[in-house]
Amino acid sequence: MKPGSLNAITDVSGVTVGHVTLSNGNMQTGVTAILPHQGNVFHEKLIASSHVINGFGKTMGTIQLAELGTLETPIILTNTLNVGTAANAVIDYMLEKNADIGNTTGTVNPVIGECNDMFLNDVRGRFVKEEHVRQALDHTGVEFEEGAVGAGRGMLCYSLKGGIGSASRVLALGHGEYTIGVLVLSNFGILSDLTVSNKPIGKELKNNILQSYQEEDKGSVMVIVATDLPLSERQLNRILKRAVTGLSRTGSIITNGSGEIVLGFTTANKIPHVKPSQCLAIETIHEEDMDEAFRAVGEAAEEAVLNSLITAEAVVGRDGNERPTLKDLLEKFALSLKNP
Amino acid sequence: MKPGSLNAITDVSGVTVGHVTLSNGNMQTGVTAILPHQGNVFHEKLIASSHVINGFGKTMGTIQLAELGTLETPIILTNTLNVGTAANAVIDYMLEKNADIGNTTGTVNPVIGECNDMFLNDVRGRFVKEEHVRQALDHTGVEFEEGAVGAGRGMLCYSLKGGIGSASRVLALGHGEYTIGVLVLSNFGILSDLTVSNKPIGKELKNNILQSYQEEDKGSVMVIVATDLPLSERQLNRILKRAVTGLSRTGSIITNGSGEIVLGFTTANKIPHVKPSQCLAIETIHEEDMDEAFRAVGEAAEEAVLNSLITAEAVVGRDGNERPTLKDLLEKFALSLKNP
Amino acid sequence: MKPGSLNAITDVSGVTVGHVTLSNGNMQTGVTAILPHQGNVFHEKLIASSHVINGFGKTMGTIQLAELGTLETPIILTNTLNVGTAANAVIDYMLEKNADIGNTTGTVNPVIGECNDMFLNDVRGRFVKEEHVRQALDHTGVEFEEGAVGAGRGMLCYSLKGGIGSASRVLALGHGEYTIGVLVLSNFGILSDLTVSNKPIGKELKNNILQSYQEEDKGSVMVIVATDLPLSERQLNRILKRAVTGLSRTGSIITNGSGEIVLGFTTANKIPHVKPSQCLAIETIHEEDMDEAFRAVGEAAEEAVLNSLITAEAVVGRDGNERPTLKDLLEKFALSLKNP
Amino acid sequence: MKPGSLNAITDVSGVTVGHVTLSNGNMQTGVTAILPHQGNVFHEKLIASSHVINGFGKTMGTIQLAELGTLETPIILTNTLNVGTAANAVIDYMLEKNADIGNTTGTVNPVIGECNDMFLNDVRGRFVKEEHVRQALDHTGVEFEEGAVGAGRGMLCYSLKGGIGSASRVLALGHGEYTIGVLVLSNFGILSDLTVSNKPIGKELKNNILQSYQEEDKGSVMVIVATDLPLSERQLNRILKRAVTGLSRTGSIITNGSGEIVLGFTTANKIPHVKPSQCLAIETIHEEDMDEAFRAVGEAAEEAVLNSLITAEAVVGRDGNERPTLKDLLEKFALSLKNP
Repeated sequence: MKPGSLNAITDVSGVTVGHVTLSNGNMQTGVTAILPHQGNVFHEKLIASSHVINGFGKTMGTIQLAELGTLETPIILTNTLNVGTAANAVIDYMLEKNADIGNTTGTVNPVIGECNDMFLNDVRGRFVKEEHVRQALDHTGVEFEEGAVGAGRGMLCYSLKGGIGSASRVLALGHGEYTIGVLVLSNFGILSDLTVSNKPIGKELKNNILQSYQEEDKGSVMVIVATDLPLSERQLNRILKRAVTGLSRTGSIITNGSGEIVLGFTTANKIPHVKPSQCLAIETIHEEDMDEAFRAVGEAAEEAVLNSLITAEAVVGRDGNERPTLKDLLEKFALSLKNP
Repeated sequence: MKPGSLNAITDVSGVTVGHVTLSNGNMQTGVTAILPHQGNVFHEKLIASSHVINGFGKTMGTIQLAELGTLETPIILTNTLNVGTAANAVIDYMLEKNADIGNTTGTVNPVIGECNDMFLNDVRGRFVKEEHVRQALDHTGVEFEEGAVGAGRGMLCYSLKGGIGSASRVLALGHGEYTIGVLVLSNFGILSDLTVSNKPIGKELKNNILQSYQEEDKGSVMVIVATDLPLSERQLNRILKRAVTGLSRTGSIITNGSGEIVLGFTTANKIPHVKPSQCLAIETIHEEDMDEAFRAVGEAAEEAVLNSLITAEAVVGRDGNERPTLKDLLEKFALSLKNP
Repeated sequence: MKPGSLNAITDVSGVTVGHVTLSNGNMQTGVTAILPHQGNVFHEKLIASSHVINGFGKTMGTIQLAELGTLETPIILTNTLNVGTAANAVIDYMLEKNADIGNTTGTVNPVIGECNDMFLNDVRGRFVKEEHVRQALDHTGVEFEEGAVGAGRGMLCYSLKGGIGSASRVLALGHGEYTIGVLVLSNFGILSDLTVSNKPIGKELKNNILQSYQEEDKGSVMVIVATDLPLSERQLNRILKRAVTGLSRTGSIITNGSGEIVLGFTTANKIPHVKPSQCLAIETIHEEDMDEAFRAVGEAAEEAVLNSLITAEAVVGRDGNERPTLKDLLEKFALSLKNP
Repeated sequence: MKPGSLNAITDVSGVTVGHVTLSNGNMQTGVTAILPHQGNVFHEKLIASSHVINGFGKTMGTIQLAELGTLETPIILTNTLNVGTAANAVIDYMLEKNADIGNTTGTVNPVIGECNDMFLNDVRGRFVKEEHVRQALDHTGVEFEEGAVGAGRGMLCYSLKGGIGSASRVLALGHGEYTIGVLVLSNFGILSDLTVSNKPIGKELKNNILQSYQEEDKGSVMVIVATDLPLSERQLNRILKRAVTGLSRTGSIITNGSGEIVLGFTTANKIPHVKPSQCLAIETIHEEDMDEAFRAVGEAAEEAVLNSLITAEAVVGRDGNERPTLKDLLEKFALSLKNP
């Protein structure tokens, strides 16, 4: 399938991404903020859903997402022990923009995802502060960096340097053209499982070159899915469930310690916070249009993981810990990612 | 809240109910069929959902209901060991009405609910035959009997004679008037827990009058919810979850052996089997309209259970087994269901 | 059923509760901490589960609870907009007690529950600080106050003053005596629905005395269940699901805006963080022993809600907002909670 | 990982499989029966679970599996429109072997899986009769055929002839050696997606050789997982969820119309139907042992699908419909399944 013009989650109109990267010795961590649209998300909520591939994780906000089917804040990604801080910052941000929250209307549901970057980052240091989260929220754009940036700064993927990756696919349905965009925070897998475009490159690297690797997966992966497809929350959830096919094709066996969570939203229908006088009319595709979306999300998730690997620069972190980058290894050993 | 004109599930326009009752010695069982609308349900599906209160039950068809959010057949209620027979009959019925099923389009998902009537009925006899199911499907109406009829023939409720009960409530929302109807197949609870309109009548009966009762709950309850409210499958599911408040007010503690399943559908949006060229527009209420529906479904479920008790006539069944009817007890002991 | 000696969650051996109450003008909020046992909960985890009655809430930590079936931290209750702060404080507390977390082993999953106290408390003020959470964690005991204390300081229940309530029940099974304890943070319901021991006292109060009440439920309820019953996480989850019967008997219809979450743990089996050389042997009851537990949790949840109402003292809070206490109303109108 | 001695689900001690194949013109269907152990499964239940990958399917029995965590009957696989018949036959079989069912104890929960074989089989004919199911149940063994046999007779997989496939893996954990066995009924996917051992053989076949193929996935896949690992139902469920990694590696994108259901059981703990006087002691592995099981189930599921393809013989069915076999294509085009 065809990627969007940026091959990124921001190909979905209205979506922007911002990073704050914290890098200094034992501190190798950060924040990534995703704005689902550029209006007031609390008052114009988006249909949203989440899917737990493996629940060894601390993602926050999914109970209300499931009950109400709507997202009402930006999504923040950060390290595991800074989820509370990120929640605090999002709440501040929302209170500031919405004087009615907690005053004349109810409260607000921050959605925060996380991975554990403790190999490269001193996660106990809890370096992310509320101002970093705010800075990420305030500086988003349609163009954004991938690799060892933002929340991805300290992450590993397949025992190599991982981090932020993104990709998108365009769907041509009978009634229009739509986009599905994926952003991953990649932090999972062991080297010997890495597969790129059907090539078991991880086994090659592991068996021939990097045999001394200790490989234990304590990682995780966050997958953020954005689309402009008209979908009910049930349909969106079905799409989120297919992200696992893309992860699997990169070699994932979904290990015990790897919290793998998919969060998604569609910009096609806006749900008003304040009850209108009439019923809502929610536009949705017919179920038989779903296969294109299923293929798209798998392809985009797969490519987003690979993009996180191929764009990541080397990071020397906690106690001098380091992992090679895929780019360096490919160059060093003159390997290609393509099958012959 | 105000009941509909029939105070029954058939107050929801298009819904009809039919019974076949099998009553002869050890055979005290039957079938109840619910048509969700009077057109071709396979080609004009309804948004539907199910909720498991307690899954010690054998209800069939809920996996697809959850995935696709639609009902495409009538709903059949019968005894536990005749679920397969009911499925066969529904499949025959659907194949007959739809030459495309299994030929030029896919298959069909029968939805069958059940309770175990083994105290009054020799359930091992598996007396329900496919022709009984067909007969129930072919003879439905907006007026139907309650009590020891259809699938309710051999059921017990609160150790008294139970069976089929129904009730409805009318919701006045800003944008229109809607109806929620409930039909229960009641087969749960022990006498000492029975509560009617806040009156602990079961304790009175148990403590003073019927002390010899052996009370073990091997029962179940099926709750069918119909409405014409415009709802997404998520919203409908939220409503189904509230049926438990009504059951609880009758005294239920949801025992281990009691399979308690809620199935529901809304007639407000019809989902075509064949993909149209354009997107669908699904009408839904705003979430802030839900409280009226939550109150309605609880009230209707509570009253439907009580209606199943108060309308049930005495049945002498398997091995001469028998349970008193609530009507007889109230008369006999000059009790009122109202608090003083 | 018989209550435990304290008729509180702390009747389950090892469980302690601590409050910090913040009360000053517009600040009427606080923290309640529940220690599930007195050892190192991270290294000796407890089998745990959660159940969402209505997911309009921001409870944190349930994804991992579901995946791994274990609780590894104390449980904190507070107001909705201080969940992040509570998480931060629990993480600090856990890091301090466990030098291995985020260093030689993985991270930690704080479990935080909340209700929205914005009527009496200026929730936008976010008055709970990390030190308050820490203080609650550090000062727990088997005896603890109920009513307008801790996280319950600013809560309403059935439009009256609500807050913290607790109760317990003792189960006599063939193989031993066990306890189920419940603690609620009550913040739900509208006055006209309040029912006490089958008496519709709320309707009496509403119809005759307090007709001017504006009643909109923006509340929530947290239900914490502790037990020493030997249970698998599936069995525990079944028990948690029955809490709703008790809430329903107090009059709840589970409104849209009321986040209702049940969190529970059993102290009967400790699951080591570090993998032992042999398999674990998990003691569990047989499914046929469950009915006693189902009855117990319903009774304890019902009584815990009523205890939160009857113990709550009057609070004048945000903008002078105030709600009567049940105790005052009963005295004032010479009402009894018992049916005649 | 190492396969078991038969490389089949029957490497798990106690598990046997039986087929009845119906093959005559438009009738190309059948039954496959899996006995989970050789004793009385109703009285010695096994810990069991299910996982829905995609719920466009009619599998029966999973509600009770989820609630009680136990399997109490053999598992039957057949075509979609014969699920009711299979249920009836299993009920008969269970009643015959257990005079207490529906008499002195409750009823029984048959577990039936299905795929839609309408391309090769006239599924509307509903050719499977109760005696066929019984025959399959009565003639099981540790050795069994794979390919176009039993329930697999009329199935397609990746637009080629599919059907029954099996594989197993042996896990060496610190405390012992265990086996995970998988049996699939494969009926999913489109040719261009087929991937074997990382080789995109489907694309090769599709692009170069079989371009005229109409490809629409109306299929499904049933995955049966057996193991002797000591597991809780939660742990077993986690393992079942990983089957999708193996399916994905064969090329699956989990299409809309493909009902994909995983059913599994462990023979390590037997749960008595009759309550014993004491608590049960359930042996389980520690969570950190899970990764081996996750890898094993993915590998076995992947290989089971490929075994279903490579063993399937050609079938000419309904209206002369036919699909090539993978074996024939490999020979005809001198292709290898291995990457160069």
